[in-house]
Amino acid sequence: MAQTQHGNAPIPASGAWTPDQPAGNRRFHRFATTRPFSLEGGGQLSDVTTAYETWGELDAAASNAVLVCHAWTGDSHAAGPAGPGHPTPGWWEGLIGAGKPIDTDRYFVVCANVLGGCQGTTGPASPDPSDGRPYALRFPVVTIRDMVRAQALLADSLGITRWRAVVGGSMGGMQVLEWGVMFPQRVGAIVPIATCVEASAQQIAWGSIGRRALLMDPKWNDGDYYGADDDEGPWHGLAVARMIAQVTFRTDNKFSERFGRRLANKNFHDDGLDLLSKFEVEGYLDHHGDRLVRRFDANSYLYIGKAMDLHDVGRGRGGVARAMSRITAPSLTIGISSDILYPAYQQETIHAHITNGDARNRYVEIESDEGHDGFLIATQQVGAELSAFLSGPG
Amino acid sequence: MAQTQHGNAPIPASGAWTPDQPAGNRRFHRFATTRPFSLEGGGQLSDVTTAYETWGELDAAASNAVLVCHAWTGDSHAAGPAGPGHPTPGWWEGLIGAGKPIDTDRYFVVCANVLGGCQGTTGPASPDPSDGRPYALRFPVVTIRDMVRAQALLADSLGITRWRAVVGGSMGGMQVLEWGVMFPQRVGAIVPIATCVEASAQQIAWGSIGRRALLMDPKWNDGDYYGADDDEGPWHGLAVARMIAQVTFRTDNKFSERFGRRLANKNFHDDGLDLLSKFEVEGYLDHHGDRLVRRFDANSYLYIGKAMDLHDVGRGRGGVARAMSRITAPSLTIGISSDILYPAYQQETIHAHITNGDARNRYVEIESDEGHDGFLIATQQVGAELSAFLSGPG
Repeated sequence: MAQTQHGNAPIPASGAWTPDQPAGNRRFHRFATTRPFSLEGGGQLSDVTTAYETWGELDAAASNAVLVCHAWTGDSHAAGPAGPGHPTPGWWEGLIGAGKPIDTDRYFVVCANVLGGCQGTTGPASPDPSDGRPYALRFPVVTIRDMVRAQALLADSLGITRWRAVVGGSMGGMQVLEWGVMFPQRVGAIVPIATCVEASAQQIAWGSIGRRALLMDPKWNDGDYYGADDDEGPWHGLAVARMIAQVTFRTDNKFSERFGRRLANKNFHDDGLDLLSKFEVEGYLDHHGDRLVRRFDANSYLYIGKAMDLHDVGRGRGGVARAMSRITAPSLTIGISSDILYPAYQQETIHAHITNGDARNRYVEIESDEGHDGFLIATQQVGAELSAFLSGPG
Repeated sequence: MAQTQHGNAPIPASGAWTPDQPAGNRRFHRFATTRPFSLEGGGQLSDVTTAYETWGELDAAASNAVLVCHAWTGDSHAAGPAGPGHPTPGWWEGLIGAGKPIDTDRYFVVCANVLGGCQGTTGPASPDPSDGRPYALRFPVVTIRDMVRAQALLADSLGITRWRAVVGGSMGGMQVLEWGVMFPQRVGAIVPIATCVEASAQQIAWGSIGRRALLMDPKWNDGDYYGADDDEGPWHGLAVARMIAQVTFRTDNKFSERFGRRLANKNFHDDGLDLLSKFEVEGYLDHHGDRLVRRFDANSYLYIGKAMDLHDVGRGRGGVARAMSRITAPSLTIGISSDILYPAYQQETIHAHITNGDARNRYVEIESDEGHDGFLIATQQVGAELSAFLSGPG
């Protein structure tokens, strides 16, 4: 099993632009700040690097920038082809590009890897400046608010005082809501998709069981596995955690349609059956678990999962309703009808709490049987709503 | 952590009644057969012991016997107080007893621990007669049909040629359906609750992830952990498997209502927060995981889980519809409105496939937000339907 990519390149000078691989209108940069960065949970990082990609051109007034926020195991590669460090095309390829709903002929689109991540932004796999060794569990707990404040520093460095829109699904949608609440003047519109104002007990339960599975893997070694050989990391634990998540991302219907009860390699009556023989759906889960292991750092998985569990826009702000009342931007809230992880009622709750009276506020429930992953898969329906919303006055 | 109870008492003589602890109308017996018992999957057991409990008295015509079938981690203790070997009262205490829906003044009620179990019936923890050591993974794969055939042997030994009714929820309901299909002449009525004609891909997915977590525990040791000290069994793996199941047994609503977002021992802003601090719902899951570990054998968990995944009344019978057409008994099928694991549509499928034309066939969806566990918790609603159904002609 291949080892997780967790090496960060050397940190460039504070605030510097460092285009690693210019390719047409697509750019890949790192932005670093060496000012101490204080975290909501009480910790501090003495320097922070943010890896991000951009598409399109920022206009002279810096008024056409759209921030796209990624989900749990996503990264900055929201659009563009597969390539070094990106085994697959962009995760929102259907939505971002020339003439697409997030139109790169019109907008300057930015997507940054989150704080705590492992695709170039500072996270538990990054070297701790105190000794140059990976932080591992010395990394402080980060929250969605910390991720957003890191993105705000990036916006400052790009000269963007106000986003035309901030858009994202799942954990990306949590960031969208925090942008609306923390920086009302800096967002022209918000599009939270398949997300929530606060993680529910069931969401916490799923996340926590995945973490417990990962922690149980002896090769996790209290988070200190970075020097390990390819076969010596907590890959089994990470795979089990991912498999749990993968079921919650999809639906009963889709699984039945796609896999039914087919056995992977056997026929019950012809071959007999042993305890460990598998159904096709089990092979699918193995595949998803193993695929994540090849590209994601196990400790990042823990820290980002914890950040989602801690997501609560009302914390320290007198509750959800008061927090959400800070949102001044017009909003498009999108739910997926079959989502079992972030059910449509949570999207209705978001919409109900946006009380700025803007006539453009809108809630749409998309009919799709793709489950939570509908926000990544049902791009035509999501895109149609997004186009209509963004083409209005911003 | 306490060790799983997995010792079986010595096997009594074939077919003998062995009342271990007579207490009023409640009896606790073991029944053993030393004839070879061939299994659907191709294996064979050279002897089988079935542990069971009974309540009430069998009438002279042996016409008043009701078989209650237990679920995954249940056992024969469907009713009665806690006691040695039974840390809790019966799991259907609200339904079984004098004057209760399954009225022990009227019926002779039988509940047997399933084949592959660990509460007295032969399972992977039982001694393999070839060397006296626990079978562990040498135990053959068992199916729901094998469990039912073991129960049929028990019925023979009790002189019961026909059950007045066979009743059960979840995996118990799978046995109910197989009784109806395999032995139409031996069942006077069937009551499948919160179950299915065949395990769906999503159900298989959940079961399989739990098993993978258990197999990942190094202390599982390829199933060979029976000589281990209390602290040396695969208790962490079993606990994680159970935690996954526990979430699927309940509902988003119930979790939110009961736990919300309360932290177990901390306050975010007062105490700071570390990666491993817990929400209350996490403590609840830990509790459920650890409680199962104290009473259940990890290998039994694997084998019984596999039996559920393999459940398919249509296998080798020309499909589900043809198999279900063998059912002649009147049926009461019960679904729980909020069940996410065995959704109501699966109960409608059962009901739709019972084509014997009996006017007493009935499907009821119980309104309850307890989720799958509603079959254990909503005993008043289940009981009312059961009473009405059983009081009709049988």
